[in-house]
Formats: sequence, structure tokens, C-alpha cells
Amino acid sequence: MTLTTLEKPVDRIPSAPNKASTMKALVYQAVGKKALVDCPKPKITAPTDAIVKITKTTICGTDLHILKGDLPSCQPGRILGHEGVGIVDQVGSAVTVFKPGDHVLISCVSACGKCVYCRKQMYSHCTTGGWILGNTIDGTQAEFVRIPHADMSLYPIPEGADEEALVLLSDILPTSFECGVLNGKVEPGSTVAIVGSGPVGLAALLTAQFYSPAEIIMIDLDDNRLEVAKRFGATSTINSSDGKAAEEVMKMTGKRGVDTAIEAVGIPATFELCEKIVTAGGHIANIGVHGKKVDLHLESLWDRNIAITTRLVDTVTIPMLFKTVASRKIDPKQLITHRFKLDKILDAYETFGHAAETKALKVIIET
Amino acid sequence: MTLTTLEKPVDRIPSAPNKASTMKALVYQAVGKKALVDCPKPKITAPTDAIVKITKTTICGTDLHILKGDLPSCQPGRILGHEGVGIVDQVGSAVTVFKPGDHVLISCVSACGKCVYCRKQMYSHCTTGGWILGNTIDGTQAEFVRIPHADMSLYPIPEGADEEALVLLSDILPTSFECGVLNGKVEPGSTVAIVGSGPVGLAALLTAQFYSPAEIIMIDLDDNRLEVAKRFGATSTINSSDGKAAEEVMKMTGKRGVDTAIEAVGIPATFELCEKIVTAGGHIANIGVHGKKVDLHLESLWDRNIAITTRLVDTVTIPMLFKTVASRKIDPKQLITHRFKLDKILDAYETFGHAAETKALKVIIET
Amino acid sequence: MTLTTLEKPVDRIPSAPNKASTMKALVYQAVGKKALVDCPKPKITAPTDAIVKITKTTICGTDLHILKGDLPSCQPGRILGHEGVGIVDQVGSAVTVFKPGDHVLISCVSACGKCVYCRKQMYSHCTTGGWILGNTIDGTQAEFVRIPHADMSLYPIPEGADEEALVLLSDILPTSFECGVLNGKVEPGSTVAIVGSGPVGLAALLTAQFYSPAEIIMIDLDDNRLEVAKRFGATSTINSSDGKAAEEVMKMTGKRGVDTAIEAVGIPATFELCEKIVTAGGHIANIGVHGKKVDLHLESLWDRNIAITTRLVDTVTIPMLFKTVASRKIDPKQLITHRFKLDKILDAYETFGHAAETKALKVIIET
Amino acid sequence: MTLTTLEKPVDRIPSAPNKASTMKALVYQAVGKKALVDCPKPKITAPTDAIVKITKTTICGTDLHILKGDLPSCQPGRILGHEGVGIVDQVGSAVTVFKPGDHVLISCVSACGKCVYCRKQMYSHCTTGGWILGNTIDGTQAEFVRIPHADMSLYPIPEGADEEALVLLSDILPTSFECGVLNGKVEPGSTVAIVGSGPVGLAALLTAQFYSPAEIIMIDLDDNRLEVAKRFGATSTINSSDGKAAEEVMKMTGKRGVDTAIEAVGIPATFELCEKIVTAGGHIANIGVHGKKVDLHLESLWDRNIAITTRLVDTVTIPMLFKTVASRKIDPKQLITHRFKLDKILDAYETFGHAAETKALKVIIET
Repeated sequence: MTLTTLEKPVDRIPSAPNKASTMKALVYQAVGKKALVDCPKPKITAPTDAIVKITKTTICGTDLHILKGDLPSCQPGRILGHEGVGIVDQVGSAVTVFKPGDHVLISCVSACGKCVYCRKQMYSHCTTGGWILGNTIDGTQAEFVRIPHADMSLYPIPEGADEEALVLLSDILPTSFECGVLNGKVEPGSTVAIVGSGPVGLAALLTAQFYSPAEIIMIDLDDNRLEVAKRFGATSTINSSDGKAAEEVMKMTGKRGVDTAIEAVGIPATFELCEKIVTAGGHIANIGVHGKKVDLHLESLWDRNIAITTRLVDTVTIPMLFKTVASRKIDPKQLITHRFKLDKILDAYETFGHAAETKALKVIIET
Repeated sequence: MTLTTLEKPVDRIPSAPNKASTMKALVYQAVGKKALVDCPKPKITAPTDAIVKITKTTICGTDLHILKGDLPSCQPGRILGHEGVGIVDQVGSAVTVFKPGDHVLISCVSACGKCVYCRKQMYSHCTTGGWILGNTIDGTQAEFVRIPHADMSLYPIPEGADEEALVLLSDILPTSFECGVLNGKVEPGSTVAIVGSGPVGLAALLTAQFYSPAEIIMIDLDDNRLEVAKRFGATSTINSSDGKAAEEVMKMTGKRGVDTAIEAVGIPATFELCEKIVTAGGHIANIGVHGKKVDLHLESLWDRNIAITTRLVDTVTIPMLFKTVASRKIDPKQLITHRFKLDKILDAYETFGHAAETKALKVIIET
Repeated sequence: MTLTTLEKPVDRIPSAPNKASTMKALVYQAVGKKALVDCPKPKITAPTDAIVKITKTTICGTDLHILKGDLPSCQPGRILGHEGVGIVDQVGSAVTVFKPGDHVLISCVSACGKCVYCRKQMYSHCTTGGWILGNTIDGTQAEFVRIPHADMSLYPIPEGADEEALVLLSDILPTSFECGVLNGKVEPGSTVAIVGSGPVGLAALLTAQFYSPAEIIMIDLDDNRLEVAKRFGATSTINSSDGKAAEEVMKMTGKRGVDTAIEAVGIPATFELCEKIVTAGGHIANIGVHGKKVDLHLESLWDRNIAITTRLVDTVTIPMLFKTVASRKIDPKQLITHRFKLDKILDAYETFGHAAETKALKVIIET
Repeated sequence: MTLTTLEKPVDRIPSAPNKASTMKALVYQAVGKKALVDCPKPKITAPTDAIVKITKTTICGTDLHILKGDLPSCQPGRILGHEGVGIVDQVGSAVTVFKPGDHVLISCVSACGKCVYCRKQMYSHCTTGGWILGNTIDGTQAEFVRIPHADMSLYPIPEGADEEALVLLSDILPTSFECGVLNGKVEPGSTVAIVGSGPVGLAALLTAQFYSPAEIIMIDLDDNRLEVAKRFGATSTINSSDGKAAEEVMKMTGKRGVDTAIEAVGIPATFELCEKIVTAGGHIANIGVHGKKVDLHLESLWDRNIAITTRLVDTVTIPMLFKTVASRKIDPKQLITHRFKLDKILDAYETFGHAAETKALKVIIET
């Protein structure tokens, strides 16, 4: 992809989809600048690669961060996007699980399956993978995408499945479930607070219910999102704009605090709120992407028997989540608020980027 | 105990030990001030109490903190000490496990066994117990001590056991083992760093070896203590006075970092060193008593899949540790460097308080 | 209690309830023989005892076993019953958690809280407790019952709670949950088979849903009970009377078998069915009370990476279950099919003992 | 490999090792019949294969079972052996971790890394692997072997390592550790009995010590092996030939029984001994390969809170064990009693097959 191309987005040349040598893609061009442009269609570069024709993708909060220039690992010229479902178009010679025509779910994390981290199920730290899609290699907001380590990084979609729902299994559901719910050790009868009622916090709210906690308190600044949280199963909500959320949580819990505090924002204030509301013996499970250090108040926490966890999603729970969707234990489509065609992806970004006004949660992009 | 008594230490009136109404005790009198004074012998105040005649006790780093005025929960007039072995002198009417004459080990933590925390094995947070001995009630640096919730807070010592070794099971061994080794999930073949080679860090070094880690790196500022660490089984040591400990650990571990970083000091610099050396997927297990907040660098740790734990010792592992001592899997007496009679306890404090010069680790006080 | 009394049931002498010296109770008189008789009201015999006035109790399958003479630990002359709720009437001098007038739930298992087993949360094996109520000491099918180790064996009922629902927390819910669901490691998306759709199997069906398994297959010989199972959330049912249950399960699971097989009957055939249907890496969780050995087919299971567990309920999950009932994550009252007054307890036994005809699950006895 | 070849063992044609088209190999020819014969050198048949030149291999008890005709999966004509170390000779096009010349340890279990079982770390049940070497495909008792799924089934040996010791990491150490020690949840201070003091039982004895149990009781019929057990760290031994082993264990443990009973023989009597000696709350960890069903005495075990586990080794702990060997936490070479050259492999079988007389544990075959 040349910068010339990037700077002059042109219409896509019409052609038979699988044979075209170019495709449309959403490219990060410079800080604050993106465009839907014509790019060369990706090619197999390793025998373990697959090329997937995207049918549905979505936009993540992280994509907005990239566009602001917050993630130096992702440089201008990059096709964004790390979520989606599609149809296998081509496979490398060492791919054995998939063949062209297979409908697949794409994990946001690529995993070789062989390295020291993959062997520990820490796919996020795969030495030749991890979160690279739409970050250090081209991503899914395009007509086609190259998926490295395809056998470990794609998941077969059985016939008849609702593919739109499965888009949410690429990243947001496993992220909220692994980093928030599993690390937070949510269990039957426990009390949970989720700080942040954006898409990830709401996904944590949905997946926390797999374990039947007694209470889920959602905390946010936006009344609309708290309203959504109630619909999604929150037992109570707190608008934290008055700075009294910690007091309110303590009041609600008889001064005890919560068994699990899930941080789903990524700023010091929300993490420090978790420190204030976690009960003795409880868990703080961080999901948020943090750009700054936070104050850890060990002077009050050193003797509280708490655990604080961090995690980049490993997507090891995709098969488990697949089963919960198939058996209707969860309806991820509740998170989808808008749908756009790929050629309207700039509108999709606009809608997703102004969530307070548009009430957008997840937006689906169809190709 | 009246303040008058406290301010005028007098010699102990000689008498038959079990019938005297007064006893000698080390009393915290004011910030920076302590004395061995005559005090009333403790009495049973609840049916679950026992009075224990102390045979051996010791001094903890926490006692020094109290004397500096660092722990407001402990007020002047208090008999210090929360460790020791002794002989049951009297029991309340509801005590069923012990009878006068039984040799017992005293847990530093008192536990009712019934409250919501005790039922979770979090004795440290017992609603009517926890760490109260030598803190909010009189302690063990005396001829006698009242032990509340005796059935749950004392442990029988079988005939023939080496009681001196067992003094170290009151606090230092379970503390280092529960807060450091168990929370840090040390396992066969793993790489451990222990920051702080004082008595607690060295106890962590000894108890970590229960799990056969491949490497244990001890870090301290004091070459003598690092020398001791080598004798106790450290596979390597780092004197961190040049500020390059983190770099050295990374070099030693092939840039990987350690699976478990145990913080055994209690200041921001040592905790932050742990943040720098923990590997992806690793554990930071805090043992240190912190008086200040620390910087938690979530901007670099949010995606590292780490766990940070804090804990006040619950002493739930005393029975397990008892068996390891009895079967000679560990020799806690290695930690004992000095012995004093109770009437020389001020000398014992002097020796323990100047460990750099005296090379003291644990000092035993015999009554 | 004299045998003369037992053999000549007389009407209860009317009197103010708390002051009477006799009470009505259901007594096991001889194999196959029981009666509602007047008995002396129980008295405090240890300082940790409480006397509880029963308000609601129930009958357990185990009571039927006792009446058949199957449990030699329970001898004639015994008041039966180990479940119930009531009001504290008197407490011993060492009881600190409860006072007369408190509404309480009675655990079927008595726990001292202090012994080696209680410290491991294995209350079922308490050296001075365990399952003794209505077994080796008089039980709850009476107007009053003496509860040893009251502080650890009773649970406070908050005002306004539905006490009838809580009767099911004495035994059947913790039994099915601890022995079946927890030991069976049911998890989101997993496939579960429950062999036996009687009250305990149905309780396992209800509590398994705390973990959102994808499939729960109920297996029984009685179509009515399978019908109930469907109403309670079974995703499929198998009537095993044709001897083809194993084949059917394998067909339903694509030849894979189930992740968790819960045995809730207690005979060799049902346990061996579990051996046939468990998948590689799966769990067989035994709840059933077995009177005979079973064939363990290690020649086919030795390399299947399975775990088989047994357990007598410890009731350690009563607090957790309490919260799930309070927060309406489960409605235990679905299991209640009939209600009787204490003076009709023989009718209650009749109804419960002929469940195939009466469709009885749990019957409540009110005093 | 043709049967003609098999029936007429001929001398190996001398040639440059890596270029010869034939090699020597130990072939299972018929029940009770084996020979060292010339066979075609194996070829890469899949892009994920590697050909390894064997430098050291060994004989397993399972090889003797195959020769008796006990394992129908292994048919005459098969080259035996599933353990060994060697040097990579050739790799398929999709092998990325290894290259010719690399020194490698061979896992007895081949793992694709991608299937549903491999993703759960259950390599033993890999849908295209598992234990196939020397079973359903040709094995390691040869000059060369083809290793499928090479990247996941070989482990790099660093320069300077003691390769002979590492032969024991192919099977016997991970088997005893995973199936016996890990499944048996051996822990500091616990009491362990190992039934069977053959090579696998002794390997369990060595690896159990990673967790510092207080007691390890070894049980066998052969006094020589019990003598070895004492040298290897057993705290006591029982010769069970008088049929009183269970009584003796109960006496040794104060009637309590053992926390962990490891079955390392594979016959009903030894498994049933484990049932008799396991304490309430304990674990029976089966390692033995069983050819018959056993009696599971649920009539006495249903209420004992025990866990019984079975497992075919997954070899997921090879990296962990590697580190324990490298750091000298264990010396596996203690298990090696004899060494032979490949052309004397029939003598090696003779020695290994008559262990009672030869006192053989593991025999090393060098090529």
C-alpha cells in the first residue's frame, strides 16, 4: 500500500470479488485521519496463512485510540480492524483445519500454538502473534484480510449460526469475560461492580451473568448507558458524576464492598474507585487500556487479601463462548445498535465515535 | 495496667509463677519508649479464653514499627508481642480443645472460627479477632498472655517437638509462606525473585523451596544478608544499592523476568522493582507492610496478564507447616541468631533493632 | 424417650409451646415402623447447644432408608429429620451468634468449626459433628430440636425471607450443588447429564444452571419426573427404561459424551451409566448413597483423564445459596409439591414414599 | 516395511548414517517375538513431520505389554519405542521451530496443538496424535524415527545438557508427575502412599518430592525395589506380600489413611488397596495401565469426599520438568541401571524383562 494511494482515496474498480487484485479498506492515514481507499488484496505470505473474505466486521474503541495516535505500534498506512466473520478465500499449504468456502470467525489475537506462551494458553503473548491484526499487520475493515497462523486464529462457524452475533466473539465478549469475569472470579451469589458501562463494560455485565452473581452494580457517567445496563441485567446503577460512587457502593453493600470490581474504562480515577470498593478477600479485574500509571494505595490494601489482575485477552474462551451463544445462554446481539455497509464505514466511525449522542454500542459493517 | 505502673518500671516481685498476681512484661510506653515492667497477670474474660504461660517468644519487625508510632491501632500501655510458645495455665469454660498443662503454639492471629471471614479461612479478618495480640490487646512478650478464641488460635505441640523452632510458626513462617509463596504460586521449575532479605524475606526463601523452583534470586542492600540467603538456598543474589537490580534480573532471566516477585520490604521502591521484573503471566506477591501508596504502572502492565496480591497472614497453614517442620523438610531454627532471657529483653530489642551491625535475624526470648 | 412412650402414641397435651416439657415427634420405632409420639422436649446438654422450635421441616429420601433399616448408625427410638427452619428457643452459655427469638435455618450437618476437618471446610467429617441430626441424635421432625455446635450449624434468616424456600437449603440444595455441581465442575457452555430425576437430581438441575451449561440431559425411568425436569430447565430428557440411555447420550453429543455426569440415584447401574457417557477429560460427580460396590471399568477409563468424586455434603455453600435465593437466581420452592401439618406427618410420609403415584418431590411439614 | 524384511533380520549395511536408505530397528514381529532388523529409513510424509536420528532411547513396560499381545492397537510389523533423544535429520516444509542438527527430546505423545483436546492441554487425546509412536506408527527403537507434528512433539535440548538424563523426560517422568503427583495433589506436609515401586512408581517418588510431602510410603512385593525406594527418599516402605499393607498404612498414619494414594501397578488388587488407605478428603491418582475392571467400594467411599483420577500422560509438563533437571532439583539418572548399544537391544530387553533378577529400572539404548 503506497502513501499515494492512501492520500487519494479512489472508487473501487468493479470486478468479480475473488479475482480482483484490489479491494476497499479503511486505512489509518495520519493522526486524526482515515479513509476508505483501494488497496491491493492481501496475499498468502506464509504456509500457515489464510486469506478471508470479510462479510461482517465492526469498530473497536481501540481503533479510535489508534486514530488519535495513542498506539505507536500502529503506524499510518495500516488497514484497521481486528474483529469480524467471513469466508475463507485461500489457504497456505500448511493450513489443515480450514479450506476455501469455510465460514469463519476471526480472533482478534493470532496464535502460533507452539511458543512458550501459546502452550500456556496465553495467546495474547504469542511470540509471532498476539494482537497484531489492524495493529502491526493489516486488519479486517476491508474486503479481505490475511490471517497468520490461520488454524489457531480462526474458528469454524457451523451452518445456520447467526453470524452477526458471532462478530462479537472476535474481541469484546472474550475480552470482557476473560479479563473481567474469569479473572474477577465472579461466582454464584457474589457481588460485582463494573466501573464503565460502555460496550466492554456491558459485555462484562452480560458474561458475568453466566455465574449467577447476586448483585451487579454498574457505574458510569452516562445515564443512557446505565439505562441500557439495567435492561441487560444490572441489579443497580450509579451515576458517578457526583464523585460519590464509592460511598454509594459501600452503602449498598452494608459497608462491605464488592467481591469483584471490574475496571472497564482505563483511567486512574476508575481504577482507584475499584481500590476503594473492593471488599477484603476480593478481586480487582482490570480490562481497561491504561495510558498512565495509577496510585495503588498499598497503605490501606496491604492487609486486605485482595488480588489485582491485568490481562490482554487471550481469546482462549472463544469455543466456550460459542457454545453459550449457540445454546442461547447469552444474546450478544443486544450490543449491536447500528449497521452500515462497508462503503459507509466513515459514517459508522462517526456514529461509533459519538456514542453519547448516537447511543451507539457496537456498529456492524457489512461488506 | 495503669500508666503509673508503666512509667515506673519496678523489679518483679518474686513468687510462685502460676499463683502470682503480677508478672513481668515488655510494655510500649510512648513513641520511642518501652520498658520491662510488672503488670497484673491476665485473667480469663470470656469463656473461650485461655491463659498461656509463655516459655519462648520473639520480636517482630512490626514491634519496631509500633515503637516508632507507625501503627495507631496500638496505643501506649500495651504489652507487645504476637509470637510464642507456652504452656496452658487456665482455660475458660467453653474451651474444649486445650487444658492446663498443654504445650501450645500461639498464632499471631486470633480466630473465632464462626464469622463470615473465618468460614472462608480468612482468619486475619475475623470480626472479633485477627491480628489483635500485642496490638489492640496485650501480647506475648510477658510471662503470661490471654489468648481469645483459644481453641482456634492455639495449636497443640506434641511431646518431644523442638519448641524453639516452633516459635517461628507463630507469624514469620506462615506470613512468608501464605503471603509470598502461596499467593505467588511458586511451582517446580519456576523463577522467583525475593526483594528483601530480612527475616521475612529469608523465611520466604526457605518456604519457597517446598515447591522446588529452579531459581530464587534474593535482592537486598546488605551483603551480609545476601550471604545468609546463599546459605539458605538462594541460587543468586543481587545487591541493589547501585539501582540496577531490575536490569540485572532481566539479564539473569534472558530478558524474560521472573514468574514470581515477592515483595518483603514494604516501601514504594521495592514494590516498583517487582513491577519491573515480573514476567508476562507472572505474580507479584506482596508481604511488606506499606505506609505509603505506590505507583502502579498500568500503562505498561495492563496487557501483561499479571496478578498482584496482598494479604495479612491468616495462619491457616500452621498445621501444614507443623508437618514440614516435624518431617524436617525445613529447619526454621536457621533463622534464630540470638537468645535472651526475658529480663534481658531490652538487650534483645537492641540487638534486633540494629540488625545491620549485629547480623540478627530472629532473637528468642526465654521466660 | 422410653419405648413405652414410643409404642403408645398419645395426643399431645395442650400447653404454652415454650414451657411444655413434652412435644410431638416422629420417631423411628423399628424397621418399617414409625409413629408420631409425645417425647420429652430436648434440653441444652453442652454450652454450645441451642434448642430450636421447628416451624417447618421436611422428609428426605434418607429417612425412608432409615425406616427400611438400611442405616445401622440410626437405631430405633430416634426422632428422624435433619432439615428445617425454626426459631431459637434457648441457647447454651457459649453460643454467641444466636439468641432466643432468632429465626434460623438448620444445617443437616453439625460442625464444631475447630477440628482438622472443619478447618478444611469438610464439616461432613467433623469429629464431633457431621451428619448426626436424625441419625445418631434426635432430629427435626418434632416441635423442638437440640442443635449441637449451634454457632456453626445454624444460619440466621433475615426478616422478610421466605422461610419455606429456605427449608430446602438444609440439605437438598447444598447436597446437589456441592456433590454434583461443584465437584462436577459444571461451567458455561458445558454439557451435563444428570442420572436420576428425583428431588436431588432435580435440585442438581436447578443449581447447575448457576453456571450456564449449554446442555443438561436428564435421565430417569419416570416420565413424570422427566416432564418436571423439562419445566425446570433440562435441555433434553431420556427415559432409560429401554437400557439404551448411554447410546442415546452418545448420539446427542456427537459421540463425544458429557463433560459432567452427575449420579443422583445410588445404585450400580446408574453409576456405571455415568462411566459410559463421560467424555475424555470429564467428571463423574457422585451424589447417590450407595449400598453396594460398583464396577469401575478402569480397562477403558485408565487413559481417559477423568475424575470421579464422592462427597457427603459439607453445607459450606449454605451462605452462597442463601444469596442466590435472596437474589432470585433460583426458586427452590419449585421443588415443593405438598404441605402437611405436623400431626399429619404420617400422611406426609405416605405421600413422599409413593412419589411415583403422588408425584411428590419435597413435602413441607409445618408445626 | 515388508513382512519379508521382518522375518529375515539381516545385518545393517554400513553406510554414512544420514544418507543410508535403510536402518536398524527393533520390530515387533508376532506375539512374543521381536527382532533387530533392517528397515527402510523413515521419510517425511507430512509438512509438519521431522526425521530424528536417535542417539539414545529406552524400553518401557508398555513395550513388554505389546510383545505379549496385550495392546491390539499395536500390530506386528511395528518398530517399537516411544522415548528418546536425538538429532534432527530432516524437517518438513511447515516445521518452523526445528532445523537439521538440533538436539531434541522426543515426547512419547504427539500433539497437533490445534484440536479441541490440544487446546485444553490434553495432548494425550490429540485427534491426530496422542500416543502413536511405537504403537500405531513406527517408534524410536531404531536409528531414525519420523515424528509427526514435530513443532509440538519435540523439545529443544540446550547445549551442554546431560542428554541421557533427558531420555527419562520422554515418558516416565511426566507420566509419574502428571498422572500421579499433580493429579494426586501432593503438597507440603502431606502423606503419600505409592503402590508399586517399579520404575514408574519410583519416578513418582522422585517427582512427589518437588512438593515436600512429610511422608512417602512405598509399597511393593520386591524388597530390592523397596530398598531402592528408601535411597530415593521414601520415608517408609511396606512389603505387601503378607496381604496386610492396608492395616500397616492405617497404623502408620494413626488410623487416618493417606492424603494421596498413587496407583503405579495396574491390577485390581493394587487399586483396591488405594481405596482402603485413602483418607477422607484424599485423592487416588491412577497411573497404572489396567486390563480389567476393578471393584469400586462406593458403599464405603460415597461419603468420604475423595477424588479418583485417571490420565494418559499429556507431557505438558516436559518444559517444567526440563527446568527441574537443569536446576538439579531432581536427578533422573538415578533411575538408569543399565546401558546397551542398539545392536545389543535384545539383551537390553532381556535385562529389562527380568527386573526381579537383574534389578533393572531403566535401561538406556545408545545408537
